[in-house]
Amino acid sequence: MSQHKNVALLLTGNELMSGDTVDSNSSRIALALGERQIAVSKKITVGDDPALLRASLRELCREAGVVIINGGLGPTEDDLTAEVVAEVAGEQLADHPDAIAHLEEWCEKRGLELNASNLKQAHLPASADLVDNPIGSAVGFAVEIEGCLVITTPGVPVELTAMLPEICERVGARVGSGTTYIRRLQTFGIGESTIQELVNARSSDWPEGVVLGFRSGLPQLELKLQVYSQSLLEERNRAETLLTELIGDHIIGEDSDQLAMALQRALLAQGLSVTTAESCTGGLIASLITKEAGSSQVFGAGFVTYANASKQKVLDVPEAELNDHGAVSEPVVRSMLKGALSKASADIGIAVSGVAGPGGGSEDKPVGTVWLAWGTETHNDAIRLQIPGSRERFQILVAAIGLDLMRRQVLNLPAIPHYIKRFVYRNA
Amino acid sequence: MSQHKNVALLLTGNELMSGDTVDSNSSRIALALGERQIAVSKKITVGDDPALLRASLRELCREAGVVIINGGLGPTEDDLTAEVVAEVAGEQLADHPDAIAHLEEWCEKRGLELNASNLKQAHLPASADLVDNPIGSAVGFAVEIEGCLVITTPGVPVELTAMLPEICERVGARVGSGTTYIRRLQTFGIGESTIQELVNARSSDWPEGVVLGFRSGLPQLELKLQVYSQSLLEERNRAETLLTELIGDHIIGEDSDQLAMALQRALLAQGLSVTTAESCTGGLIASLITKEAGSSQVFGAGFVTYANASKQKVLDVPEAELNDHGAVSEPVVRSMLKGALSKASADIGIAVSGVAGPGGGSEDKPVGTVWLAWGTETHNDAIRLQIPGSRERFQILVAAIGLDLMRRQVLNLPAIPHYIKRFVYRNA
Repeated sequence: MSQHKNVALLLTGNELMSGDTVDSNSSRIALALGERQIAVSKKITVGDDPALLRASLRELCREAGVVIINGGLGPTEDDLTAEVVAEVAGEQLADHPDAIAHLEEWCEKRGLELNASNLKQAHLPASADLVDNPIGSAVGFAVEIEGCLVITTPGVPVELTAMLPEICERVGARVGSGTTYIRRLQTFGIGESTIQELVNARSSDWPEGVVLGFRSGLPQLELKLQVYSQSLLEERNRAETLLTELIGDHIIGEDSDQLAMALQRALLAQGLSVTTAESCTGGLIASLITKEAGSSQVFGAGFVTYANASKQKVLDVPEAELNDHGAVSEPVVRSMLKGALSKASADIGIAVSGVAGPGGGSEDKPVGTVWLAWGTETHNDAIRLQIPGSRERFQILVAAIGLDLMRRQVLNLPAIPHYIKRFVYRNA
Repeated sequence: MSQHKNVALLLTGNELMSGDTVDSNSSRIALALGERQIAVSKKITVGDDPALLRASLRELCREAGVVIINGGLGPTEDDLTAEVVAEVAGEQLADHPDAIAHLEEWCEKRGLELNASNLKQAHLPASADLVDNPIGSAVGFAVEIEGCLVITTPGVPVELTAMLPEICERVGARVGSGTTYIRRLQTFGIGESTIQELVNARSSDWPEGVVLGFRSGLPQLELKLQVYSQSLLEERNRAETLLTELIGDHIIGEDSDQLAMALQRALLAQGLSVTTAESCTGGLIASLITKEAGSSQVFGAGFVTYANASKQKVLDVPEAELNDHGAVSEPVVRSMLKGALSKASADIGIAVSGVAGPGGGSEDKPVGTVWLAWGTETHNDAIRLQIPGSRERFQILVAAIGLDLMRRQVLNLPAIPHYIKRFVYRNA
């Protein structure tokens, strides 16, 4: 591939160099280009330093057919992009009538006075071809520098996102583009290496031309099935079918679905309602359920009973159980579940009690110990797990496992998949 | 400054180019170096492509006195860093005895068999000087390339973090270092531009040599007061005193303190306990309170009453109030607060009921409307706010405001600072 098909990024901003800001814009740009089969070959990041910016822009213009510059379009003195591009292009800066019109409109809509620092944003290289910014005051622009298309974009993420469709179009027109047909699946409770092993063991069944990718998060792992031609969509579907056969009970949804949404869907399909009785997760499970729009259809009430007294008073856990077995015990989580189902008049529920740490552990019940009870009035179960890691990780994983246990019960899936077996407490 | 004092980063990985991974490692490295007054001048990011990696490494070695490479040290074929460094250094790859010893120990601790792909991680440039990795299997190493110190580091964030002290030491020994004396303050409810204006208006009182920086997040804004010499610590303290004078009620803590921790501290100091009665935030406030270690000292129980029926059944909100005023109303949040204080036997509490959206809005109470009631049995108040934005932003801001209102009451600070005035509902 000729270097004129290369796309490079030049990212600018002192905050990117100091580490105060993590650059997520280049990921946004790359993902949007990737959907059009356009790859980014190189990124250079420098601070707001005109000499370094000029040198880096010259370097990338030699190496690539398109350079996208992100940042430095704002109204302050630190914003050097227009000046640097003009210099490297050998052009003067001039007031751009359309950029001024854009600024006037932008200020008018907000009842603001157009001032000198705003107007700096319309001071662009003479040959600048505007890229519309439907949201912000700073327009982007494109210029040609010795056969290289240079496009400038604002650093504000929402503005960049709004401009990406037009930018991708322009880049595609220069370097060629296609369509990447991406299917995203969300999974829980299974690792990348396990999935890869399962797929490898069936490699002869894996359809040609389908690329499997991973994007890991906590607690979910995203799978990406990609094909580069519409004619391969059938293959992509076959790959998805194979994945479903291999790890179907771990696939909780598509796109950016979260566990709580998977649970909401399962509950809605059967007209069931859910409740929560939380000690160590302190409201996180309820919060995840209600983060999803539409949750009022399945969730009426949840209880955070952190103290022993509140487990008694709010959920009617018998004092004797607390005294005899402790708050982190099977009888107590079973009673918490029973109390919550009754008080919330809910069909299914989850109760958790554990030692999130860093304090509170004992020899019998070290930090990371948790008891979960889940199910309905008549069909419920309990389990003791041991979750290593920080307090934050403990709470995130316990909440996710709690949601997943209910999802599995509602959907009639295996209750204790291998990921839980990994955490199951074994008495030594 | 000579270019031999420059520090550059070379980041490698296809996942960084595709956008599937957002690079946070370079921010980690830059922050750690910044604390020693070492600045990063340039970053180059490329995929797992040997030719591009070689060219980029050669380029950076010409321009900088130190190049830190991040990524590509793993056991797979994609991991090219050792090979590329050896080629650019004009050296052979050879088994490194200390790296093998490290791998053997690492495997033994985990009961694993040392295999061929592990051993690849000990195949290093002949002159490699190891950088210990106290956590992972891949060691880092340093080599000299034409007067430039090249240091390689693993891409796994926890491993990188564990190695950073030694790396900073080595970089400092090469390019010189100092100490940046950083004081971090966490604020809530005030914007960067407002703070800057307030400081500018007192510029004659601002101590010389103290640099004010910002790092914005949702919902908090971090302030950084930096000085570059121990002799300026007194000046830094004076700057902090001035900030406290200007925006003291917005300063909730230091380092990485969260609002919930500020509240916990205030409650502990007065021996008070807290409860929550949440509708639209669905458990988020309780979850934030209990995310903090030590929360069991101040928090016994919280209630998520999402449905009207549960507001009645769980918190004794009178049915007539719900019928006459609706769930999002002053009488209802006041009754929710009263019910929660009583059921949890708590001293102070927060109750929230609102329209998080996207559905559920009406002309009277559009999406973003929220009523909050907070305080004690005898000393409480209620307010209606209108919070624009997404469901997620609404929930985050309402929860933060709820925590802050209680913090302000316990600390006897102004109840309704300007940030809330911005959101106060005005009947047209």
